[in-house]
Amino acid sequence: MQTNANFRDVFYVSDGTAITSETLGHAVLGQFDIEIQQTTLPFVESIERANLVKSQIDRAYEKTGEKPLVFYSIVIPEVKEIINSAQANFYDVLNLLVEPLKNDLQLEPQPQLQRSHSIDKDSASYHDRIAAIEYTLAHDDGISLNNLEQADIILLGVSRCGKTPTSLYLAMQFGIRAVNYPFIAEDMATLKLPKAIEPYRYKTYGLTIEPERLVTIRHERYANSEYASEQQCVEELNKVESMFRREAIPYLNTTSLSVEEISTRLLDMSGLKRRMC
Amino acid sequence: MQTNANFRDVFYVSDGTAITSETLGHAVLGQFDIEIQQTTLPFVESIERANLVKSQIDRAYEKTGEKPLVFYSIVIPEVKEIINSAQANFYDVLNLLVEPLKNDLQLEPQPQLQRSHSIDKDSASYHDRIAAIEYTLAHDDGISLNNLEQADIILLGVSRCGKTPTSLYLAMQFGIRAVNYPFIAEDMATLKLPKAIEPYRYKTYGLTIEPERLVTIRHERYANSEYASEQQCVEELNKVESMFRREAIPYLNTTSLSVEEISTRLLDMSGLKRRMC
Repeated sequence: MQTNANFRDVFYVSDGTAITSETLGHAVLGQFDIEIQQTTLPFVESIERANLVKSQIDRAYEKTGEKPLVFYSIVIPEVKEIINSAQANFYDVLNLLVEPLKNDLQLEPQPQLQRSHSIDKDSASYHDRIAAIEYTLAHDDGISLNNLEQADIILLGVSRCGKTPTSLYLAMQFGIRAVNYPFIAEDMATLKLPKAIEPYRYKTYGLTIEPERLVTIRHERYANSEYASEQQCVEELNKVESMFRREAIPYLNTTSLSVEEISTRLLDMSGLKRRMC
Repeated sequence: MQTNANFRDVFYVSDGTAITSETLGHAVLGQFDIEIQQTTLPFVESIERANLVKSQIDRAYEKTGEKPLVFYSIVIPEVKEIINSAQANFYDVLNLLVEPLKNDLQLEPQPQLQRSHSIDKDSASYHDRIAAIEYTLAHDDGISLNNLEQADIILLGVSRCGKTPTSLYLAMQFGIRAVNYPFIAEDMATLKLPKAIEPYRYKTYGLTIEPERLVTIRHERYANSEYASEQQCVEELNKVESMFRREAIPYLNTTSLSVEEISTRLLDMSGLKRRMC
């Protein structure tokens, strides 16, 4: 039996996707200086599977001598009871909030009402989200500048500054129809806002990035190319940033931001509403 | 002043992206039979912005006479204090779990340690995720069947059964490199596993869907086409499903599943690990 007080097995268990338990558990654990090994166990809906999960948690305890941390959200009472009998510390991610809400709202919760991340596929919001993914894919990387009137947001920037992942995240997570358009080396001599985008400048935003970071990213793709050279990166960024300023296009430096942060900052800058499913 | 006990304004407030507050608040509220209007306010990092948010919450209270519900996660003490002075019911989504964890771990939390959804961009997991998005885009919808040895998962199915949104979700959320390949009408006469995929059948999964649902989805795209006809949809699904059985390719019916559910079920079927950033 190996004991290390700074190491813990962590399990995210749910009779649904386990995404809520995972998101919250991950965020909370980020505040503690411990080493963790994470296992996600979704769709624990049957007695059989619940027993397997209990054994898995118990084995982890026997191996380390430290109680695993179990973040869970389980609606089925029989399943919950079995999981609860494992040797572990339990954190019921939904119920912790359900109790105070129940008191404040003076309402009884109805756990069957809606499982998170389980969606009425005929709902307008689900439909919008799938449509947003399609629209965004069809307008990735300058593929098309048609139907821009349907765009929620248009992103501009040099190659490899984060436009594509950001556009897809906006579509996937928030149902936002995003267009992205790259400026390439050949554009630099006479850099201006593309004609098709001019009427939609009110919903157009720029992305930029520190030259050193851009050099690193481009090198990973095409090592030792002109495209990845410091001179080329600096020149492109200077020209594109002055164009943003000249055209009064608001822009965001993505260097130290995650895709989630870039996306939520853009929503914030644009005043676009998140469409949640 | 209008009063309706079953209506509440809901605010998600954070000095970060507010994604954790949003995910959890949304999940908990799904258990109560109330009408809500949701507003997300990320990056509340300054005293000025905190005061604006407080006023916005107070205005909602004055308008409805019901205290708004505020789900928040705020690290900066001065900002938290201002938000807390608004007329509202507060739910501190992280701290609710931090307290029990602190006791169980016998450790003090270090709130500065890591902000969720804010990522070390040089970390391997962030890099993997961006690479997974690129790989998945390059292998969407049969565009390429090259480099399949680098794929984590290969998805097969008829057109419009959910392959593309699922592939992108797997890449974006879990850093999974997904390939997807569509079977089209012309494939039906001699339907078989594509030669390039044969060596990788161990990581290949099928998606299928109920014919009625497929008809509806295809009609939205090409109304009254042969492609959207019931006969065509039934035939394609029958042939593709028998091929899956003949070739022993495990498959999943996506009809009543969200993109999150399809993705997490595929991870579960394949034993692939989620890579979390």
